[in-house]
Amino acid sequence: MENYSFDYFTVQFPADHQYVAHVEINRPERLNAFIEVMWENMAQIFNKLSSDPQVRAIVLSGAGAKAFTAGLDVKAASEGLLSSDSDNTDPARKAAVFRRHISAFQDCITAVERCEKPVVVALHGFSLGLGIDLSTATDVRLCSRDTRFGVKEVDIGLAADIGTLSRLPKVVGNYGWVKEVALTAREFGAEEALRVGFVNEVYDNREATIAAAFKLASLMASKSPVAVQGTKEILNFSRDHSVQDGLRYTSVWNSAALQTQDISAALLSGLQRRTPTFEKL
Amino acid sequence: MENYSFDYFTVQFPADHQYVAHVEINRPERLNAFIEVMWENMAQIFNKLSSDPQVRAIVLSGAGAKAFTAGLDVKAASEGLLSSDSDNTDPARKAAVFRRHISAFQDCITAVERCEKPVVVALHGFSLGLGIDLSTATDVRLCSRDTRFGVKEVDIGLAADIGTLSRLPKVVGNYGWVKEVALTAREFGAEEALRVGFVNEVYDNREATIAAAFKLASLMASKSPVAVQGTKEILNFSRDHSVQDGLRYTSVWNSAALQTQDISAALLSGLQRRTPTFEKL
Amino acid sequence: MENYSFDYFTVQFPADHQYVAHVEINRPERLNAFIEVMWENMAQIFNKLSSDPQVRAIVLSGAGAKAFTAGLDVKAASEGLLSSDSDNTDPARKAAVFRRHISAFQDCITAVERCEKPVVVALHGFSLGLGIDLSTATDVRLCSRDTRFGVKEVDIGLAADIGTLSRLPKVVGNYGWVKEVALTAREFGAEEALRVGFVNEVYDNREATIAAAFKLASLMASKSPVAVQGTKEILNFSRDHSVQDGLRYTSVWNSAALQTQDISAALLSGLQRRTPTFEKL
Amino acid sequence: MENYSFDYFTVQFPADHQYVAHVEINRPERLNAFIEVMWENMAQIFNKLSSDPQVRAIVLSGAGAKAFTAGLDVKAASEGLLSSDSDNTDPARKAAVFRRHISAFQDCITAVERCEKPVVVALHGFSLGLGIDLSTATDVRLCSRDTRFGVKEVDIGLAADIGTLSRLPKVVGNYGWVKEVALTAREFGAEEALRVGFVNEVYDNREATIAAAFKLASLMASKSPVAVQGTKEILNFSRDHSVQDGLRYTSVWNSAALQTQDISAALLSGLQRRTPTFEKL
Amino acid sequence: MENYSFDYFTVQFPADHQYVAHVEINRPERLNAFIEVMWENMAQIFNKLSSDPQVRAIVLSGAGAKAFTAGLDVKAASEGLLSSDSDNTDPARKAAVFRRHISAFQDCITAVERCEKPVVVALHGFSLGLGIDLSTATDVRLCSRDTRFGVKEVDIGLAADIGTLSRLPKVVGNYGWVKEVALTAREFGAEEALRVGFVNEVYDNREATIAAAFKLASLMASKSPVAVQGTKEILNFSRDHSVQDGLRYTSVWNSAALQTQDISAALLSGLQRRTPTFEKL
Amino acid sequence: MENYSFDYFTVQFPADHQYVAHVEINRPERLNAFIEVMWENMAQIFNKLSSDPQVRAIVLSGAGAKAFTAGLDVKAASEGLLSSDSDNTDPARKAAVFRRHISAFQDCITAVERCEKPVVVALHGFSLGLGIDLSTATDVRLCSRDTRFGVKEVDIGLAADIGTLSRLPKVVGNYGWVKEVALTAREFGAEEALRVGFVNEVYDNREATIAAAFKLASLMASKSPVAVQGTKEILNFSRDHSVQDGLRYTSVWNSAALQTQDISAALLSGLQRRTPTFEKL
Repeated sequence: MENYSFDYFTVQFPADHQYVAHVEINRPERLNAFIEVMWENMAQIFNKLSSDPQVRAIVLSGAGAKAFTAGLDVKAASEGLLSSDSDNTDPARKAAVFRRHISAFQDCITAVERCEKPVVVALHGFSLGLGIDLSTATDVRLCSRDTRFGVKEVDIGLAADIGTLSRLPKVVGNYGWVKEVALTAREFGAEEALRVGFVNEVYDNREATIAAAFKLASLMASKSPVAVQGTKEILNFSRDHSVQDGLRYTSVWNSAALQTQDISAALLSGLQRRTPTFEKL
Repeated sequence: MENYSFDYFTVQFPADHQYVAHVEINRPERLNAFIEVMWENMAQIFNKLSSDPQVRAIVLSGAGAKAFTAGLDVKAASEGLLSSDSDNTDPARKAAVFRRHISAFQDCITAVERCEKPVVVALHGFSLGLGIDLSTATDVRLCSRDTRFGVKEVDIGLAADIGTLSRLPKVVGNYGWVKEVALTAREFGAEEALRVGFVNEVYDNREATIAAAFKLASLMASKSPVAVQGTKEILNFSRDHSVQDGLRYTSVWNSAALQTQDISAALLSGLQRRTPTFEKL
Repeated sequence: MENYSFDYFTVQFPADHQYVAHVEINRPERLNAFIEVMWENMAQIFNKLSSDPQVRAIVLSGAGAKAFTAGLDVKAASEGLLSSDSDNTDPARKAAVFRRHISAFQDCITAVERCEKPVVVALHGFSLGLGIDLSTATDVRLCSRDTRFGVKEVDIGLAADIGTLSRLPKVVGNYGWVKEVALTAREFGAEEALRVGFVNEVYDNREATIAAAFKLASLMASKSPVAVQGTKEILNFSRDHSVQDGLRYTSVWNSAALQTQDISAALLSGLQRRTPTFEKL
Repeated sequence: MENYSFDYFTVQFPADHQYVAHVEINRPERLNAFIEVMWENMAQIFNKLSSDPQVRAIVLSGAGAKAFTAGLDVKAASEGLLSSDSDNTDPARKAAVFRRHISAFQDCITAVERCEKPVVVALHGFSLGLGIDLSTATDVRLCSRDTRFGVKEVDIGLAADIGTLSRLPKVVGNYGWVKEVALTAREFGAEEALRVGFVNEVYDNREATIAAAFKLASLMASKSPVAVQGTKEILNFSRDHSVQDGLRYTSVWNSAALQTQDISAALLSGLQRRTPTFEKL
Repeated sequence: MENYSFDYFTVQFPADHQYVAHVEINRPERLNAFIEVMWENMAQIFNKLSSDPQVRAIVLSGAGAKAFTAGLDVKAASEGLLSSDSDNTDPARKAAVFRRHISAFQDCITAVERCEKPVVVALHGFSLGLGIDLSTATDVRLCSRDTRFGVKEVDIGLAADIGTLSRLPKVVGNYGWVKEVALTAREFGAEEALRVGFVNEVYDNREATIAAAFKLASLMASKSPVAVQGTKEILNFSRDHSVQDGLRYTSVWNSAALQTQDISAALLSGLQRRTPTFEKL
Repeated sequence: MENYSFDYFTVQFPADHQYVAHVEINRPERLNAFIEVMWENMAQIFNKLSSDPQVRAIVLSGAGAKAFTAGLDVKAASEGLLSSDSDNTDPARKAAVFRRHISAFQDCITAVERCEKPVVVALHGFSLGLGIDLSTATDVRLCSRDTRFGVKEVDIGLAADIGTLSRLPKVVGNYGWVKEVALTAREFGAEEALRVGFVNEVYDNREATIAAAFKLASLMASKSPVAVQGTKEILNFSRDHSVQDGLRYTSVWNSAALQTQDISAALLSGLQRRTPTFEKL
C-alpha cells in the first residue's frame, strides 16, 4: 500500500508488518503540540483506516525524540479555542460556541476509539494533557522509560474536557489515583504508569517501544479480523453497559460473526500447525 | 448431606467443612473440556445449591492434575454449536439459531453468578477460554503456580461470547491489559494473574489451592448467611448500576435483612467471645 | 477564618495552609466510634464547607492515637438503629423504619462525596466498618503504616449498607479482592491497601500521614478552584455514566467554566513563572 | 400440527390460520384464576412456542364466558405463596423465601414477553390483577366490551409485583392514569382502556374479540418471520434503552437479518402482486 | 390532628377525611406566585408529611379563586435568583452560584415526588410555569374547567429548569405535544390537558375539583398503607429504570412488604364484606 | 439570506418568516423516495442549519402533491444497500458492510434530531417507511388530512432500522399501538395519527399544513433562542435519562444559559408589552 500524509501526520504501511498501519504525529519542532487542524486530520485518518480492508491493526506514535505530544498548543488555543475575546459578549452565547467546539474536538478523539481496528500507542517523552486524552482512546498503551505523563489541564485553569476524565478511570480502574493526578496536575513516570495499569509495558527507549508496538499489532493482525474486530467492539460496548446488556449485545453480534469461514480456517490451521490466512475485512 | 453427581460433575459435602459444597468438573481424560451437557448440568447444580439451606459457600475446581478446564471441546463444538453445516442456508435464520444457542449457553454461566451463595474457584493447569468465562462468574479466584490462563477465542476465529468480554474488565478493572490478552490470545501465568488482580492469591499446587479455597469458603460459611448472601447480591447489583442506585437498592434490601435474629446472635457471640450459630438460609 | 466545632468534630483552618480546612473526628475516648448525632453533624459540616468560598480543599482525620474510627458504635446502635425492640411488630412497618434510617444515614456519607471541594482523608489505626464507608466517599485516601482496615459488617450479621458495597469496588476497580474482604470481614493492612489501590500512599505514622494530606490538599488548593471543582464533579459524574454521557456532560459543564478569568491568570502566571492567584469560589 | 394441552391450558393450531398458535387459559370454573402450576405451565408453553418453527404469531385468550382471568387464586395463595405461616420465624429468612418466589413468578410472566413471536391477547370479562400483569407482557391487547379491568393488588394489601407496575406505564405512556388505577384499585372498562391506549380496539363480545385477534395474528404471520421477530425484539430492547443504544443494537441485529432471502422474496412478490412465502424460523 | 401553617402554606387535617392532609398554597393576593421561602417551606411540609403516621394521602391546592399558582414571582426572582447583578463578574463563578440555586430549588420540588404518601393535586385558574413543574411531581392531577396551563419559561428567556422538561414528557408520554407547548409557551386549557393525559379528570370549578381530590385521596387512604406506599415507590422507581431492573427492585421491596399483617386483614375484610383497618405507617 | 439547494433538496429563507428556514425534499417525480445521496445531503443541510445564526426554527416538507416521501427508493436500494450480490461471500464480512451502512444512514437521520434548532415537519400524501423514521427525528409533526402513514418495512422483509423502532414509541408513548402498526405494516391515516399523538394537528391540505408549520416555527423563532435551543436539548436529553439525571444536566446547562441578556430583554419587553429582540445564536 502507498503511504500518505496529512498535515502534521504520516500514515505508513511497513512492508515487514503485514496489515499494520503506522500513524505518526509529525510536528516535532513544537513537541507535537496539537492545533485544530491536527485533531481534524487525525479523525479523518482513523475513520479512513477503520474501513480500510488492508489494515487490521494500527500503531500510533509521535515523531521526534522529545515528545509523543506536549498536548494542546496552548499558545494557539489561547488565541483561538480558549480565547476570551469574541464577538459575543453574552455568556450564554459564548457557552454555545464553547460547547460546539468541545463537542467537535471530543468527536475527533472518539474517532480513535470508534476505529474498528485495534490501536496500540507507543508513548515517549512528553505525553501531557491531550496526550493522555488521546492515549485513553486507544486500546493498548506501551511507553518508554523516559515518558513524562501528566493530566495538566488544571494547571491552565480548566477541567480536562476531551476525554481523560471520562475514560482514564475506566482504563486504570482506580479512582483514588486518577483523582490525585487530575486534581494536582503532578507528572508521573513510566514505572508509576505501569504500576497503576495505565500502560501495559515499559521499554528502554522510543525505538524499542515502537518496535514492541509493532510486534503486538502484528500479532493482532495475524488473527482472524472477524474475531479481533468483534472483540474490540464488544469490549468497548461492555465498558458502558451492565453485564446483562453486554451479554445480549454479544449474542446478537456473534450470531452473524459465527457464520464466518475464519473459524474453520483457524481450526484447520490449528490442526495442521500452520498459519491461517483470512479474507480482508 | 449426601454427595451426588451429574454427568461430568461431582458435588460433595466434606464433613470437615460445614456448610461448604464442593463442585468438581470431572472429565479429566479430556482436560475437563466442556460439551453441551456439561454447561447444562453445571447450571442445574448451581441453581440447586443456590436454594439449598445446607450450603453457605461453594468451592469449584477441576479434576485431574492437568487442567481446571481446557475450555470448550472444540472438536465437539465444530460438529455441533460452531458447525457451518446446517439445514438452514439463509444467514438470517442461521443467525437466529446461533443467537439462541449463545444465549442459552450464557445463561448457564450466569447461573454461577446468580447463585446466592459465594463461590470460590480453585484454578490450576490449563484454564483457557471457557475457563476464563466461567471463573469471572465466580466471586473469588485462587490459583496454583502452574496455571496457564488464556482468552483463547480469537485463536479459533471468534470473539469470546459467553461472558469473558463483559465480565473480565469489571473483575480486574483494567481495560488495557484485558484488551491485550483478549486481542492476542496470548497465555499468561499465575504471577501476572495476581498482579492484575484476576486472582486473589497464588498457591504452590492444585492441592494447596483447593485447600485454601476451602479455608476461605469455610470462613464465609461461618458468618451469618443473611449477611453473606446480602453482601454478594448487593455487590453484584452495584457493579451494574450507579452509586445512587446501589445505595437505594441496599436500603430496600437491608430493610428486611436488618430484622434478622442473626444480628443479636452475632453481637452476643462477639461479647461472649464464642462462635455464633445461625439458622439455615 | 475562625475555627469551630460541632459535637464530636472540630473544623480548623490552619494558617499555614491557605484555603485548606481540617475536619477531625473527635471522640477518641471511644476510638471515634460513630453515634447518630455524629453523622448528622458531619453532613452539616461538609455541606457548609462545600459552599464556603474560603475553602478549596479539605483534610479529614481522626483524633487520638488509636483510630481513625472503629466504625459504628455498635453498643449505641444495638439500643437504637439496630434494635430489634420497637413499637412495631409488623415486619413491613419495621422495614419502613429501617429503610428511612438507612437512607438518611447514607445521605450523610454522600454529603462528603457531594462536597464540591476535594477531600483527602488521612487514615490511621482502626479504620473499620463505617470507616471504610466514609473513606470511599472521599477523593484521595492516605494512611499510616499501622492502619487496620476491615469491612467488618458481616461480623455483626449485616451487609454494609451505607456505601462500602456500592463505592469500594469502583474505588479499587477489582471485584475479586472486594468480595473476599467483604464476605469474610478479614482485616487488611496498609501495604495491602496500597497494593490494591485503596490508598494512594502509606506513611510512617499518623502525624506524617496528616502532614502529607495537608501537602496534597494545599497543592490542590493552589490551583484554579474552577478547574479543581469541575474536575471533581466530572470525575464523579463519569463514574456512574457511559463515556458518551460523560463527554456530553463535560462539554456542557465547561461551556460555562471556560469563560473563567482563571485561564488567562493561569496562562500568564505560567509565562511569568509566578504563582497565580484566583478569585474565591 | 397437533394440538396439545398442559394442566389448565390448551394449545391449538387452527387449520384456517396458518402459523398461528392459540393458547387458552382453561380453568373456567374458577374464572381462570391462577394457581402456581399454571404460571409454570404457561412459561413452558411460551418457551416452546418461541422456538417452534411452525409458529409465527400467537393468540392468547381465556376459556369460558366470564373471565379472561380473575387474577391470582387468592384462596390458594393465602395458603401458599402469601401464607404468613411458615417454618421460618426470622423476617430476613422469610424475605428470602418471598423474594425467590416473586422472582420465579416474574420470570414466568416475562416468558411471554421474551417469546420471539408476537402475542396478541384477547381479553374479556374479568381481567383483574394478574390478568393485567400478564397482558402487559403481550404485544397487542384487544378486548370485548364487557371486560372489567382492575389493578386490584392494593385491595389485598400488596403492591403488584409480577409486572404491572414496571410494564403498564410503558404500555400506556401515562403515569397519572396508572397511578390512579394502581393506588385505588378501581376497576375500569373497555372504553377507558381504549382511550388510554391500554387496548388497541374494543369488540362486541368474546367471540368477536378472539376472531379479531386471529385476524391480526394471521396478518403478522403472513409477513417475513425474520422481519417480524426482529421488529418485536428491537422494540422490546428500545423500550429499556436510550435511542442511541437502540440504534446501535438495531444496526448489529440487522447486519445479519438483512442477509435473508426474505427480502428478495418480499420484493419480488410485491412486484408480481402475489403473496410471498417464507422459510420457517 | 392539629392544623398548622408555614409562611404562605396551610396544612389541614379535615375531620371528615381520615388520614388525608390538605396542603394549600396561600398567597392569593399574588396569585400564589412563589418566592424562595415558599419552595423551602413546601419541601419541609412534604418531608414532614412523608413520615407522619397519621397521613396516608395528601391533597394539594391553591388558595383564592384565581390561581393554583401563577408560577415564579418573576419580580422577586429578577431581583434575586435571576438577577444579573452580582459581586461575581467571572462567568464561571456566576455559573456555580446559579447551579447551586437551581439544584436546591429542584430538590424542593423533588420533595413532593419523594413524599412516601400519594399526592393528588387540584388545579384551577392560572397554573403556569412553576405550577407545571410542581404538578408533574405529584401523583395524580385533577383540574377545574377554568384552568389555564402554560409552560411559560421560554417567554422569560429561559429553559424550564426545576422539573417540567424532565418530568412532563414521562407524565403524558408524548414528546410531540410537550415540545410544542414548551417551545412556544402557548397556554392550553383543561380539555386539552385531559386529552393528552396531563390531568385525569376535569371538574366544573375549584370547589368541585378539590372535593374530587379529597374523594380520590380518601379512597387511597382507605387502602393498606403498606400496599399504597409500596405501589407509589415502585412506580416511581420503574419510570427511571428498565423493566428488568423494575422487577428486581419490586421483588426485593415486596420481600419485606408481603410479611405485613395488612394482607390477612384485607383478605378477611374482603370475605366479611367490611372495611379493613390497618396499623399506622 | 440566500436560498440554496443540494441535490434533491431546496433550502429557502422566506422573507416573511424571519429566522425560519424551509427545507424541502425535492424529488417529486419519484414521490420523494430516498436514494443514498439524499440522506447524506440532508445530514449536511441540518448540520449547517444547526449552527447558522440566521436560523432559529426549521420547517421540513416534501415537494409535489402526492408525497412527503414514499420512503426508501426500494429499486435503488435493492441494487445497492440491500443487494444480496456482493464480492463478499462470507456472512460475517457481509454483516460488517451492512452494519457500517446502517450506522451511517442512522447518523444522517440523527442529524435532524441533533440540529440545535427546533424542526417542525409538515406531512402530506405518502409518508411511509423512511418517512416515519425521519419525522420521528423532528420535534413537532403536523399533517394534512390526506396523509397515508405506514411503518412499511416488514412488507419488504426487514425490521425498520434507521430510527422508527427506537424513536416512535417514545414519540407516542404507547407500545401497543406501535407494535400493531410495526408488526403488520398496515397504513394509518391522519385522524389515527392525531388520536395516538403522532401528529399534533391535522389540516385540510398540504398548503394549509405547511402554512401552519410556518406559523408554529415562526412563533418558536420569535422567542429567545437561548431559551428555545436549551429547551430542545434538555427535552432530548431527558428522554434517554432518569429524572434525576435530567435535573442534574438541566442545572448545569442553565448555569450558563441564565447569564444571558435575553432574560432581562424578555422581562422588560413583557413589562412594556412590546416584542423583544434577541441577539443571534
